Amino acid sequence: MNGESFDTRIVTLGPATIPSPLTMADRATHARTFVEKDRHVAIEVDPARLQAMIEAGQPVPSFELAGPRRRIYFDPSKLKCALVTCGGLCPGLNDIIRAVVLELYYGYGVRNIYGIRYGLRGFIPKYGHEVMDLCPDVVTDILEMGGSILSSSRGPQPIPEIVDALERMDIGLLFMIGGDGTLQAANLIADEILSRGLHISVVGIPKTIDNDIYMVSRSFGFDSAVAVATEAIISAHNEAQGYPNGIGLIKLMGRHSGFIAATAALAQQNVNFVLIPEIDFDLDGPRGLLKTLEDRLKARHHAVIVVAEGAGQKFFDTAHPQYDPSGNVKLGDIGLLLKEKILAYFKERDIEISLKYIDPSYIIRSLPACAKDHVFCSFLGRDAVHAGMTGRTKLLVGYWNEQFVHVPMSLPAGRRKQVDPGGKLWQNVIQATGQAVMVNE
Amino acid sequence: MNGESFDTRIVTLGPATIPSPLTMADRATHARTFVEKDRHVAIEVDPARLQAMIEAGQPVPSFELAGPRRRIYFDPSKLKCALVTCGGLCPGLNDIIRAVVLELYYGYGVRNIYGIRYGLRGFIPKYGHEVMDLCPDVVTDILEMGGSILSSSRGPQPIPEIVDALERMDIGLLFMIGGDGTLQAANLIADEILSRGLHISVVGIPKTIDNDIYMVSRSFGFDSAVAVATEAIISAHNEAQGYPNGIGLIKLMGRHSGFIAATAALAQQNVNFVLIPEIDFDLDGPRGLLKTLEDRLKARHHAVIVVAEGAGQKFFDTAHPQYDPSGNVKLGDIGLLLKEKILAYFKERDIEISLKYIDPSYIIRSLPACAKDHVFCSFLGRDAVHAGMTGRTKLLVGYWNEQFVHVPMSLPAGRRKQVDPGGKLWQNVIQATGQAVMVNE
Amino acid sequence: MNGESFDTRIVTLGPATIPSPLTMADRATHARTFVEKDRHVAIEVDPARLQAMIEAGQPVPSFELAGPRRRIYFDPSKLKCALVTCGGLCPGLNDIIRAVVLELYYGYGVRNIYGIRYGLRGFIPKYGHEVMDLCPDVVTDILEMGGSILSSSRGPQPIPEIVDALERMDIGLLFMIGGDGTLQAANLIADEILSRGLHISVVGIPKTIDNDIYMVSRSFGFDSAVAVATEAIISAHNEAQGYPNGIGLIKLMGRHSGFIAATAALAQQNVNFVLIPEIDFDLDGPRGLLKTLEDRLKARHHAVIVVAEGAGQKFFDTAHPQYDPSGNVKLGDIGLLLKEKILAYFKERDIEISLKYIDPSYIIRSLPACAKDHVFCSFLGRDAVHAGMTGRTKLLVGYWNEQFVHVPMSLPAGRRKQVDPGGKLWQNVIQATGQAVMVNE
Amino acid sequence: MNGESFDTRIVTLGPATIPSPLTMADRATHARTFVEKDRHVAIEVDPARLQAMIEAGQPVPSFELAGPRRRIYFDPSKLKCALVTCGGLCPGLNDIIRAVVLELYYGYGVRNIYGIRYGLRGFIPKYGHEVMDLCPDVVTDILEMGGSILSSSRGPQPIPEIVDALERMDIGLLFMIGGDGTLQAANLIADEILSRGLHISVVGIPKTIDNDIYMVSRSFGFDSAVAVATEAIISAHNEAQGYPNGIGLIKLMGRHSGFIAATAALAQQNVNFVLIPEIDFDLDGPRGLLKTLEDRLKARHHAVIVVAEGAGQKFFDTAHPQYDPSGNVKLGDIGLLLKEKILAYFKERDIEISLKYIDPSYIIRSLPACAKDHVFCSFLGRDAVHAGMTGRTKLLVGYWNEQFVHVPMSLPAGRRKQVDPGGKLWQNVIQATGQAVMVNE
Repeated sequence: MNGESFDTRIVTLGPATIPSPLTMADRATHARTFVEKDRHVAIEVDPARLQAMIEAGQPVPSFELAGPRRRIYFDPSKLKCALVTCGGLCPGLNDIIRAVVLELYYGYGVRNIYGIRYGLRGFIPKYGHEVMDLCPDVVTDILEMGGSILSSSRGPQPIPEIVDALERMDIGLLFMIGGDGTLQAANLIADEILSRGLHISVVGIPKTIDNDIYMVSRSFGFDSAVAVATEAIISAHNEAQGYPNGIGLIKLMGRHSGFIAATAALAQQNVNFVLIPEIDFDLDGPRGLLKTLEDRLKARHHAVIVVAEGAGQKFFDTAHPQYDPSGNVKLGDIGLLLKEKILAYFKERDIEISLKYIDPSYIIRSLPACAKDHVFCSFLGRDAVHAGMTGRTKLLVGYWNEQFVHVPMSLPAGRRKQVDPGGKLWQNVIQATGQAVMVNE
Repeated sequence: MNGESFDTRIVTLGPATIPSPLTMADRATHARTFVEKDRHVAIEVDPARLQAMIEAGQPVPSFELAGPRRRIYFDPSKLKCALVTCGGLCPGLNDIIRAVVLELYYGYGVRNIYGIRYGLRGFIPKYGHEVMDLCPDVVTDILEMGGSILSSSRGPQPIPEIVDALERMDIGLLFMIGGDGTLQAANLIADEILSRGLHISVVGIPKTIDNDIYMVSRSFGFDSAVAVATEAIISAHNEAQGYPNGIGLIKLMGRHSGFIAATAALAQQNVNFVLIPEIDFDLDGPRGLLKTLEDRLKARHHAVIVVAEGAGQKFFDTAHPQYDPSGNVKLGDIGLLLKEKILAYFKERDIEISLKYIDPSYIIRSLPACAKDHVFCSFLGRDAVHAGMTGRTKLLVGYWNEQFVHVPMSLPAGRRKQVDPGGKLWQNVIQATGQAVMVNE
Repeated sequence: MNGESFDTRIVTLGPATIPSPLTMADRATHARTFVEKDRHVAIEVDPARLQAMIEAGQPVPSFELAGPRRRIYFDPSKLKCALVTCGGLCPGLNDIIRAVVLELYYGYGVRNIYGIRYGLRGFIPKYGHEVMDLCPDVVTDILEMGGSILSSSRGPQPIPEIVDALERMDIGLLFMIGGDGTLQAANLIADEILSRGLHISVVGIPKTIDNDIYMVSRSFGFDSAVAVATEAIISAHNEAQGYPNGIGLIKLMGRHSGFIAATAALAQQNVNFVLIPEIDFDLDGPRGLLKTLEDRLKARHHAVIVVAEGAGQKFFDTAHPQYDPSGNVKLGDIGLLLKEKILAYFKERDIEISLKYIDPSYIIRSLPACAKDHVFCSFLGRDAVHAGMTGRTKLLVGYWNEQFVHVPMSLPAGRRKQVDPGGKLWQNVIQATGQAVMVNE
Repeated sequence: MNGESFDTRIVTLGPATIPSPLTMADRATHARTFVEKDRHVAIEVDPARLQAMIEAGQPVPSFELAGPRRRIYFDPSKLKCALVTCGGLCPGLNDIIRAVVLELYYGYGVRNIYGIRYGLRGFIPKYGHEVMDLCPDVVTDILEMGGSILSSSRGPQPIPEIVDALERMDIGLLFMIGGDGTLQAANLIADEILSRGLHISVVGIPKTIDNDIYMVSRSFGFDSAVAVATEAIISAHNEAQGYPNGIGLIKLMGRHSGFIAATAALAQQNVNFVLIPEIDFDLDGPRGLLKTLEDRLKARHHAVIVVAEGAGQKFFDTAHPQYDPSGNVKLGDIGLLLKEKILAYFKERDIEISLKYIDPSYIIRSLPACAKDHVFCSFLGRDAVHAGMTGRTKLLVGYWNEQFVHVPMSLPAGRRKQVDPGGKLWQNVIQATGQAVMVNE
């Protein structure tokens, strides 16, 4: 936010001229408050900066507020909609699917809603995946199921073929639920649609269990993930205390950012070392992790280490990166590396330790959402529908300053939130863990 | 916020001249970012209103940012601190106690920390409650315990006697954790201290499981409460579906505001009626609850009703209010009233129903905090300490626009947040429940 | 068992002549071990008594072992089956339904399986409840749902009309899941069937969350109930400790037996008084509960009381009993009575207390089964099918000496297991609580 | 039990002549039922076999019933006791510690109770571990902690040194909580004690999360383990369904027996393959796992595999076994082997799969006990005390035919319970999974 300027304008397919059927649903004194056109949420909340901007005649950067509008673009009786879930599982996927379907069906009266199976592959004929008809009966009871009833897949698919499929199916409104890669694909799909002159909206719902989508302060599934990660840390702590020189080593999610690791360490305050991608650390040397760990064991006889999967990548051969099907760089497995290095270090010094390595990632990401995420997802899904029905496109539904907002897809593309080493979260982690800087001079 | 002006200035006991020992704790490249004096958070986030204010030369209403300061007021080596928990139990009390004690002890080096037992009674000699010495050993493992290790009590105590006790014990910094009544008492205590010319800071941490403290967007324990309330709703739904014309009636907390009831209904989407203090409803008549419920049973054969304890108070004799020890008006028991009225209504019409009444309030409020609240409380407690150490007083640690802030105690006193009938939360409840306006013309 | 003789012979509709299709399912070396005809489980396990019986030429009382037989009575291709769930909800009902349907469908190849809705009412035409077609698709995902997908109801229905319905629907095998009253009805239904010369088997699966069916050592749902009851006791304990002279009073299920109360008190060892139907206690007088409670508060300042709903019935007007729709005597509400008596007692003595009354019964009984009960129910349901397919009737599937067995319906009818005051369970409760005899001489 | 004869006699240090102080605790009509000397529980429950034995004049093999005796051997006022926990963590360890301490302290009035830290190492001076004084204050609140407050360690220690330590500390009664190896050590310690003519009782409490101690039908922690394992299977199933040709592969505990794997598969009925040590399977060939898995994926597009850690050991080089510190053969890691083999198999065939490997073992074993195990452990711990106080030694507290019994330590030594391929548990697993025999001819 430091002096950057943001283009937060939202693209629309055309003027919204149809009165929203939600007015029909308005029941007497429960007056529905439609969101008026010009309602925005300031990105910046520092009053000094705000004052400076305004006095300098600069516009205040802001996001458009999400929510139902008085007029919509699509005729619900003729509209066909599609949903697709892409990438890794995340608690809350089924909540989003449910909210989108129920709002389309009961709120707007849309009757043709299709679930695309297995992520972007579901658009590509050669895979032969059938679409799933979605209606209230199908989605009512899915809240307590983890995973995605639509299933998912990783990896890109040819944008033109996807748009071909949308044309063939006569889709007017596409909801794409996925992470960074998916949202970049969504952006390209929306561009291809616009360049073909089609009338198809693409609305994204950002999914990142790591909570690291740029300009989105909170993403669904994160709270659920922290809750379950906490359980794993309790186990690791019990194992560490259970044996002479016990070490509990837990690998948590976080490819590029340590939000889960840092937050879970605060939710269960028995962690001694938190290693995240944002903070450099050495293994060897007088201030390195291994020596520091040895000191800790001497003093306290046990230790708990939480490591985010993207931490310590400098220890791997980054000259020859490998890629996964989604095009993400394959990370070196820092959990296994730490396990080996720690075992070797203490073996060399003939110090008996008892190391337990725990990797709960798949357990965490495939469980159902917690109550907080149930609620959050119900808002996200409904606001995605409200946005799409007005003909807005190339946007995702975000959250900023405690409000649901419209964020242009181009804004977060290729950027990420990270834990600020000088910020409140990391400072509290340091205080809770007492952990030192583990970098040699 | 509609055009109100807020005095958000914070009172201090005197200039903070002592360098913070937290600088000592600063470990090389983990540069601690002290909060600079003038960091604030704007209360308003609507850019149009912000622009109008600034262009009109009005100051932008804002809260001071919470967090550690470069200089403090109290000498940690001489400081004695006290903590007290007041009013009803709430998930997270022990988290707060723990965070305050650990930050005082390890962060600032304070060694004399006293727990006042049984709320404000603990200050009054005639009750004879001993204080509890608080140190890391005592608080380290209390996160997974519900309740408060200090215990609590309801009701006011004489302000002068409380201040006498603080003088007698030589307390310099008092942390008061409690709800609306407690914060009003805290305000009076702080005033009495100032009028006696004493150097005692009073820092409040707002506790309201109902999440209804004015100008505080989120309070600890609320997320935990919603999570457990959700379980009760699932049970009620199973009971309702389990019998012919089954009705599940759940009373949830919410004396003056329906946040728990409304949010829990969104977290578990099988509720048909949500009754909250903010929304009027009739029992009798063609649009009243009873007739509407009858119609629902005819159509669907079961129904789930969530009622906040403060809903429907118009059905009780409010001419002769009664008061509880804390001075709160004793509410009529809307849960039992609904139970009786529903039973009588259907008996009269010879319609067999199976009504199950569930009141999970004590179960909800006395369980440990959820992971999310564990984290939230760890921030709240530490920021309360940071604020108090600088000599700030008559303030509480609040949360606004996703930031921890200092709120003058006088600001929320006697006012409450409520569910906005035209706002996003209630609108989504209506859509999720399909519930009609139940007021006759 | 004290010298009683038991008739444990099982009635059959006729000879089982059809080879079990389960042999087909036999896959090479996974040799299915059919239960041979004469496999029994001794009721008595005291070797001295066994020796005495045998030496006296008496038969050793025993139950027939449950499980699949080599030959069956019904032709699966022509068989129609029905399931009904009766009485109060209990964790595990859906597990049983699922296991019965899957075993019938996949194990034996039965294709016509009907779910009777709303208990015995579902047989009676005037209520107009449709039957539910049951097949694997319907039941596969119901394990994590509480309640019963068939719903239930209380109260008897005319036996002849039920048998008329069975004839009309051409049912050959009826599974009845219910408690004491249901099993007595099942017995009468089976008799009526036999007297009409029909070929319909009736197999019962005993449901009693109270775990008090005579000659059945364990019933499903009990473990799940204890698990959730434990949570409520933790809450009550937190509330009790949270206030000056705090009292947590929890009412748990147990109309005629205190198994849940006693077991839950052992699972969470902070209970001070356990009151159950089997153990007399006085309220007043020098050894009565109220004086004992006063002494406890003086010594420890808080107390937790667990009361089974059937305890202390002598305090109610038993001269004029009332009955519920199932014909059970309506119990006086001992929870509310205790609440009132305790409040009055301490008010009279001007002793301030803080009493919290918690009744978690509906929450407990309507939640899904715990893992242990999931497994237990899968055995019960499959063994019920195995029994029924052989033409056995008038039996229920029980559990004795860690084996699943066939128990004639007539055996437990009208009798109940109770907590033995001199036995291990109650002795351990006394030791865990330290509770005295509260009866005046 | 097949015709084996068992020596189930229990060794005692000498005659029990001191009246039990438990009689003092006897409170009027709560008449304590001491266990009379000759109370036993028959091992066999098949009435035909029982009859045959008795008629042949053979004694009926039986275990002595556990529980308090009228007279005891040790003088509680002079007795010093010690507890030690050995081997792997297991839910319920703290429950046992708590029950033993409370029964010794409150039941018998023993005041000197020592916790030996870090397993058998704690006896050996060179390690320098201090003992922990155990009293009610220390153990009251440990029920909800996982692990062991005494910590543990693996591996044997010299028997004479252990007995030296017992003499030095003047211990009269030693409780050893551990698995197979620990119980064999306990046996040797008891023999060494007897050969030195010391008056020290050794009482074992069998710990095996795998539930495979011979002649003990149920061991603590098993139910808790199954409950948590079930969660992991749900995750694996969600992951499997979440991707094209998704495979969820979960490794569960079970070095020599598949009880956890088989039972967890029944508790959560979405498993397709259960691999346990008792059942042979091939990887390759037309009936091998890999081909069978390929067929499953073709038919259903996803699969869930549960493998016990001791399954498939034939695929490893058993000619050169390695040993862990406890002297157990180091098993080959079948989980990782399966992962590699499956990946290679499908890569070779150019079939895209998505394999997720989950190993929740450390999470499972270090969590607190479930309610059921809380209760079970409270019985086990108290009965261990009752046994020890009478001077009985070289025994462990077991469970058989739903009774707590005394089992001579020598009986289960070196033997194990295993899943019976023809028995009810495995048969139901086959029916629930539909899994074929995967052995080529």
